[in-house]
This record gives sequence, structure tokens and C-alpha cells, in this order.
Amino acid sequence: MITLQGKGVSDGIALGKLTFLERTHFSVEKRTITDVPAEVERFNAARETAAAQLEELSRTMAEKIGKENALLFDIHSMMLSDPDFFEPMIGIIENQKICAEYAVMEAGSALAQDFADMDDDYMKERAADVRDVANRVVAILSGTWMDVSAGSDPVILAADDFSPSETVQFDRSKVLALVSRAGAANSHTAIFARTMGIPAIIGFGSSLSAGLAGVNAAVDGGTGVLCIDPGPAVIEEFQKKHELLEEEKQAMEKYRGRETLTKSGKKIQLFANIGSVTDVEAAILGDAEGIGLFRSEFLYLGREDYPGEEEQYETYKRVLELMKGKQVIIRTMDIGADKQAAYFGLPGEENPALGMRAIRICLTRPELFKTQLRAIYRASSFGNAAIMFPMICSVAELLRAKAILKEVRNELQVQGIAFNEKVPVGIMIETPAAAIISDLLAKEADFFSIGTNDLTQYTLAIDRQNDLLSEFCDIHHEAILRLIKLSCDNAHNAGIPIGICGSLGADKTLTQFFIETGIDELSVEPSCVLPLRKVIAKL
Amino acid sequence: MITLQGKGVSDGIALGKLTFLERTHFSVEKRTITDVPAEVERFNAARETAAAQLEELSRTMAEKIGKENALLFDIHSMMLSDPDFFEPMIGIIENQKICAEYAVMEAGSALAQDFADMDDDYMKERAADVRDVANRVVAILSGTWMDVSAGSDPVILAADDFSPSETVQFDRSKVLALVSRAGAANSHTAIFARTMGIPAIIGFGSSLSAGLAGVNAAVDGGTGVLCIDPGPAVIEEFQKKHELLEEEKQAMEKYRGRETLTKSGKKIQLFANIGSVTDVEAAILGDAEGIGLFRSEFLYLGREDYPGEEEQYETYKRVLELMKGKQVIIRTMDIGADKQAAYFGLPGEENPALGMRAIRICLTRPELFKTQLRAIYRASSFGNAAIMFPMICSVAELLRAKAILKEVRNELQVQGIAFNEKVPVGIMIETPAAAIISDLLAKEADFFSIGTNDLTQYTLAIDRQNDLLSEFCDIHHEAILRLIKLSCDNAHNAGIPIGICGSLGADKTLTQFFIETGIDELSVEPSCVLPLRKVIAKL
Repeated sequence: MITLQGKGVSDGIALGKLTFLERTHFSVEKRTITDVPAEVERFNAARETAAAQLEELSRTMAEKIGKENALLFDIHSMMLSDPDFFEPMIGIIENQKICAEYAVMEAGSALAQDFADMDDDYMKERAADVRDVANRVVAILSGTWMDVSAGSDPVILAADDFSPSETVQFDRSKVLALVSRAGAANSHTAIFARTMGIPAIIGFGSSLSAGLAGVNAAVDGGTGVLCIDPGPAVIEEFQKKHELLEEEKQAMEKYRGRETLTKSGKKIQLFANIGSVTDVEAAILGDAEGIGLFRSEFLYLGREDYPGEEEQYETYKRVLELMKGKQVIIRTMDIGADKQAAYFGLPGEENPALGMRAIRICLTRPELFKTQLRAIYRASSFGNAAIMFPMICSVAELLRAKAILKEVRNELQVQGIAFNEKVPVGIMIETPAAAIISDLLAKEADFFSIGTNDLTQYTLAIDRQNDLLSEFCDIHHEAILRLIKLSCDNAHNAGIPIGICGSLGADKTLTQFFIETGIDELSVEPSCVLPLRKVIAKL
Repeated sequence: MITLQGKGVSDGIALGKLTFLERTHFSVEKRTITDVPAEVERFNAARETAAAQLEELSRTMAEKIGKENALLFDIHSMMLSDPDFFEPMIGIIENQKICAEYAVMEAGSALAQDFADMDDDYMKERAADVRDVANRVVAILSGTWMDVSAGSDPVILAADDFSPSETVQFDRSKVLALVSRAGAANSHTAIFARTMGIPAIIGFGSSLSAGLAGVNAAVDGGTGVLCIDPGPAVIEEFQKKHELLEEEKQAMEKYRGRETLTKSGKKIQLFANIGSVTDVEAAILGDAEGIGLFRSEFLYLGREDYPGEEEQYETYKRVLELMKGKQVIIRTMDIGADKQAAYFGLPGEENPALGMRAIRICLTRPELFKTQLRAIYRASSFGNAAIMFPMICSVAELLRAKAILKEVRNELQVQGIAFNEKVPVGIMIETPAAAIISDLLAKEADFFSIGTNDLTQYTLAIDRQNDLLSEFCDIHHEAILRLIKLSCDNAHNAGIPIGICGSLGADKTLTQFFIETGIDELSVEPSCVLPLRKVIAKL
């Protein structure tokens, strides 16, 4: 028996034969063309076919694995009509007089690489989506298509990597588990494997050798362990664990689509945190009741210049539409500290976490701030938006920010542009100062949301990203709990709701405390929504 | 009329003729010697003569400008017997076979330069003291001495710079004011000018040209303005200001040597903050009732290796002796953040102010901590010492620090070394966490002292040394005042005293608030003691 250790990305147990996925590969030739307009037309036709395929896929997948699970294909479809995607491809056809297949492969790879190079983990992993869509277009152009059939018997499927399209099209009854050499924990493949309930382990590297094809294996997607040729004791152990997991899963699934209620019937809003448009999908899959923290800074990161009003507007609009009337709390950009964008031209600082960041940048550069606020207001007609300011320290800062908001509303009114005048305006409670004077801030805010990560960092004077200090960093420190209680009491005295959007919100050892303290909303990572709803129901 | 702007370092008005100080200079020749032991003996004799001169000077100065003012000469005298001072001089005589005059000049300049190169402003300015003592020894060796007589009529005295010895020996009736091209605000010259009540302005640079000798001038030591050839209106204005200042000064001097009492008779301890042994002198001159914050980290800065137990012991002992039974609160080293010493080998940090500093270093490197604590305990027999821990965040940290203290006491007992077992052990309240859980900390501490600078920095999440953020940094922020009040209430509920040793302590607009809140002790810069005592007396 050999035990290989990978990174478990989808919980679950599987026992079966290890089989390597065989794909019908297509090769792309760099072919010179003469009739440029005809080639561009051929490319556009392939894009249309791809969009139609994706639409069909979305429909059949909706039946197969649920409506929300099919969202990725709508997003892939959107990509096809995104100029950032197709314009460089047409550029290559026109300028280099090269065939469409090559142009799509070339420009698609370059774009995927751009994503892979980004500093943001989530964006990095979006590279796989770009490659997936580009491959689809190339397959259509070249008249081939990937064969994702995995034989007739149920097997543990192995490969270098799995694309999201592949993953979602696997026949659940034929695929017991997925194991791969490469892969990223937050990729769509991983998300889909979780959604489809297929155990998955990634990152085995070369230890997952082709020589293992056909051997018996046992997979534990929770621990990331792959047992090659397991003995009877191991098999029994894995089977027992499987039964336990199934019971737990069934118990949790009972909570899907239900309200979040404590035993005594108190209603809690269970929201999700997101950091991009595609995250919305995970939030919907996770059964979130709204978005408690939309980290809008992703719009500003990994690029060379400020995002314009139109681009921002489109993004906010899309998220609001996807969330279909559920609340979306958009936090205005929190650039600075550990989220730096060079084109902001911020000077180096001795202590960036105590420096020019978030609302401080916005108040000193109101034109930049107004662009974002105009985009949010314009999008506000398309759903249930709220605006939230980060790093507020004083009533004066909040009043300055609100004055700029008012200017923006006046401008939009004068220009006759539609928007929702009643967009709630709240603040993050993430500096000790804000928590301590939350009675005063509550008079000027429509809601609070506690950012426990920064609040902890400043209250304890400990950089949470500094590993040297882990022995001093007590995330359950009494001072933090007291500041949460204080903010909660002050919010309720003023008649406004209060949530938690920091990572403490998903800490099950504190759920009882949060409920007793009167927290109205918890915003957590999408995958934590259902488990947390179950925990709350028992309180 | 010409107006020159300098840096006022001693308040006061003067009207008179501008006269440049003429010194009898001595030049030092690099003379080779043959009889090394004889030359060393000549050098040691000169040191003894210098010590005798300084003793005499100290005695006459005590009569002339007060006992405390004469302290500098005792410190100069100590310098003469400090191996750091004289050993390099003997080294040059012995190794290079060069005359004592040259050796003293050479080694004295090098040592002065070492001080001037230090990162600490106070240490930088001690360079002048080293030069002063070296000059005295050279003068004795060469049989010359500086002529500091300034003519027969009272004049405004100008020079490149004034040495502390010169300054203190000026005949107050002949010197109306001092103006210099160079100079530092915290130098002894400036301190003495203030003590002697001589208005002084420094830092004119070349604008104070020799061509101005003999012209009429008006000096305002408060604003740093020097009027050359002033008109009748200016003269009248300066005279009026002079009368006002004299009245104020007389009123303030009434408070020297008295207790600090409010109008209603409440007693406040008015202490001074110090950052070196020589600072003690300023604290005594300023009439401080104790030392509320002895920044022990100066022992660790500007050097290449850890200070040993003996060296630390000698320093603490000297300060305790000089303070003659008045309380001296020694803060254990606050290295890290903006006070870095390379030999500590601390790794670079993204946010040093939220990093490995102060008590966090001490708890992770107990051997280092124990050396300091042993030195303090051993010195505790010689005065009224207290120990204070910086950057405490939790009860657990305080208990860990106290456990190490106990180990040290046990070791000293076993070794039969005398110390005061009852040394009070307090903490700084300078993290928001400490203020918020001050009720819990009060059960384990003998006293609190609020460090308002760091407390403000963390509560507002604003690096106070970051100029970009000045518009957001409200040092009177309501949250800070509430944390002060909270800590004060919690201290008193537990029956322990509480002080303030941050710069807010000297903020006269808050004195009323501090008294009403029940603050027991204010520790401020030495020069703020008397003015603050006067303010308190009116409350």
C-alpha cells in the first residue's frame, strides 16, 4: 500500500480503480490566410456557435446539477462577447494574416497568462476559465471536440488537470472521484467538484504517475489522502467515514433554500463575502441570502490604470442582476495597506496598515471616489444595492463621505440619470475608534458591518499577516468581543442593523455569542453558509 | 530694519547692541613624544585638574544659578573618569607616541562624532558636552583657557555656537541674549539659557553675518525673531511683550518647590519623562516630583551589542541616586517599531508598529529580559524604583512577564544579592486592547500609565509619524478620551493609581479633563512641569 498526499478540495470518500482521462487532443497549426474578412467572419461564427453551445450546456446542466451550478456557462458566454477577449484575436487575424484557430489559441493563452500573473489568488485561478472558453472556440473552428467519456465502469479519474467544462460534464455515476497533478483550491473545477459532490484531490505533482493506471485506490477528499492498493482495514475505515459524511451532508442539505432561524425562531441574515463577479456564482451555489461584503477593490487591482465609470457600472449592475433583488453591500474601494495598485502613485510608508488606505484615499481624492459612487448609484436601479465605507474612524470622516455622496446624487439628478435614492449607506466597524464611538456613528449610518480582521489587528496592535506574532494574536481576545458587543448595543439603540463580515463571522465557537449579542447578519465565505445555517438552527 | 528668523530656544525679550564673542583660541600641535609613561601621567594630572575645576565650577554655579543647574558639571566630571572617554586617549599616546593634547583632541572629536551620528536627537546633542570636556582638558594641558568675557556693557552676544561651559559662566548682567549660527534646541546651551533666563535664538546660519557687529537689535526668544536696527514702534512692542513675559515668569516661579495641587486641594503627581541619565538633570531643574517614564531603550540604541547587566545596573543606580528617593518608573526596553537596533537581528516587517516590539521581544527572548530585570532589581536598593512593561495586550502576557520577574527575584535571593522586594510592577496602557480590558489587567498590576501616543496610533489606525495622514489624526478624538476615562475608572475600582506619560499629558486643553477623570499622575517633558503645575493650581 502506498499513501500519496495531495490537497483535498472536495470532501468525500471513494473506493475504486484509478483511471487516467484520455482526451482527443487537437493540434493547432499556424496557417497563413489571404482573405482576412472571411477569416474574421469564420471566427465570429465560431464564437456564436460556442455561445449557443454554452447556452445549451447551461440549460442541460441546470437540470442535471441545479440552476445555480449552470451560472459559470453564462459567464463563459459573456466572456465570448467581451472585447478584452475577442479583440486581440481579431487583431492577430488582421495584422498577422494568420488563421483564426492559431489567433484564438495565441491571444487566449496570453490573456490566461495575464490572469495567472495577477496578485490576487482568485483572479489567478480564473486563468482556467479563459483557457476553457478559448479551447471551446478552437475546437469548433477545427471541427474537433474533446472526448470526456471515461469508460463504462465507475472509476477514480486522474489527469494532469481538469477544465471546468470537463468537470461539469462528467457523468456523476461514472466518476467516483477526481485526482490531479496540478490544480488550485479555489478553481471552478474544485468548486464544481464540491457542488456535484465528487470527492477531489489536487496537487499530487509527478507522484501521480501514469504507471498507477488500473490499480485499486481509496480517496479521502477531506484529508487529501490517496491510498494506492489499500488493505481491508483501510477500506473498512474509509467506508465508515463515508457513511458518517453522507449522514452529515444529508443533514446539511435540509437547510438549503430555508431561512436562517435559531431554535427559538430568531431570524439571522446569512450573507456571503465576494471579491469578483464570478464569486457571485459561488455565493448563489452556497445558498447565501445576500452579499454582505462586495470587495470592490478587485476592480482596481491587477491593472495599469483606474477603472472607468462605465466598466464599474457594468460590473455592479451584473452582480445586482445576478443576485435578483437580494441585498448586495458594495464596500467602496479598500486600496492601500496590503492591497497596492502602482498607478495610484501612493508613496512608500513605514507602516502601510496604519497608512493611506481605503476611505482616506477617497476623501483626499474625491474625483476618484465620485467615479465609483456614480457607477454604484447608476447600477442601483437594477437590484438591491447598499454602499459601505471602509476604515471610518470619526463622525467627521463619515459626514465628508456622505457630502460627496450627496454631490453625486445631485449631479445624477441634474443629468436625468435614473438611480435609487434610498440606497442604504453604512460603514465598516474595523478601527477601534469606530467601535468605541459607535453610538455617535450610528446616528449617521444606516447600518454597521464589523470587519473583525482589521479590528483585531488594530486592537491588539498585531499585524495578522506577521507570522512572528502568532503566539500573541488571540483572535478570541476579550477586548474584541467587548467591542463587538458595544457596537451591537449602540447600533440597536439607534435602530440600525449590524452584521459581521470578517473571518470571525464563520467561527462556529462564537456563533452562540453573536446570536446572544444580537448580531443581525453574518457574512461569510460562500461555502460556509449552509454549515452555519445548520449550526444556528441548533441554538 | 532687517528681520532675521531663527529657532527660538529660550523665551524672552532683549534690546541691545549685537556683539560677536571673541575667544582666545588655542591650536593643538601633533607632537611626537618619547617618554610614554610620563605623557600618560601628564594626561592623568590634567584630568584631575579638570575634575577639580568642574567641582569648583559646580559649587560656584550652585550659588549663582541654583544647585540643580550645576549638575551638568558633575556629569562632565563623571565623563572624565569614564573609560569610554579616557581609554582611547591613552591608547593614542601609547600606540602612536603622540602628545596628550593631540590625543585628547583626536579621541574627543571621534567620541563626539559617535554621539552626533546617533539616531536619537538627545544623544546627538550630547556631542557638545564631550567637546566641552575635551576642550577643558586640552586647555589645561596647553596652559591656555578660553576667554568668555564679553566686554563691559550688556550686549546681545552672537557666535557660531556656544558651549555649555561658556553659557553657564556668562555674567547674566552683561549678556542680554544669545544668538548663534548653529546649535540644537535640546542642547545644554539651550537648557542653560532657559534656566538662566537668557533669551536665546539658534540656527541663523550665515544670515548672522559678522558685518552686523555693533548694530542695535531686538531679540524675541519665543518667536525666534531677531530685528536688526529696530524702529521705535518695534522697540515699544518688544518692551510691552517683555513686561508681560516677566509677569508670567514671576507667576510661574512661585510654583517651584511646591506640591501640585488643584484649587480644591486635590494632589497630582507631576513627573517627568526621561530618555537618558543626563536627562535627569533637566527633570530636577524642571522641578519634577519623580520620573514617570524612564525610556530604558536608550541603553540598547546606538551600539553594536547588548548592554550587559553591570552597565545597566550602574545606570539605573545613578538615576535612582540622583532622584534621591523620588519615584523612578523604569519602562523595560521598547525596542522594535521605530526604535531598531541591528544586533537584535529582528527580521524586516511589513508593519513594524504592529510587529515584534517591546514586551513581545522580551517574552520570546527571556534571557535578554532577565538581564534587564536583574539590573533594575539590583539597583532598586538605591532609591525608589518601579518597573513598567510596555505594549501589554493581555492578562496572559502580564502573567508571563511577572513569572519571569519572580524567577529573577528567586535567583537574586539564592545568590544573596540585595534588592527591594516591594518594587511596584505596572504596565503601560498603550494598546486599545489593554484599555478595553483594563478591569482585568488592574487585578494583576500595581499601577497603570497611559501611553497616549501609541494608544492614539492604534485606536485611530494612523501612524503618527506619517505626515500624509495629519488631516485624519485627531489627537483629541473622543475614542481616546473614552479609553482614558475607562482605564482610569478601572484602575480606581481596583485601588491602583494611574498616570499619563504620553505627549497628551502636557496638553493644557485637556488638564481639566484629566483632573476630573481622576488621573493621579502626569509625566511630561521636564520643561512642562512648572507651567503645568501653575495650570493645575487654577483648576
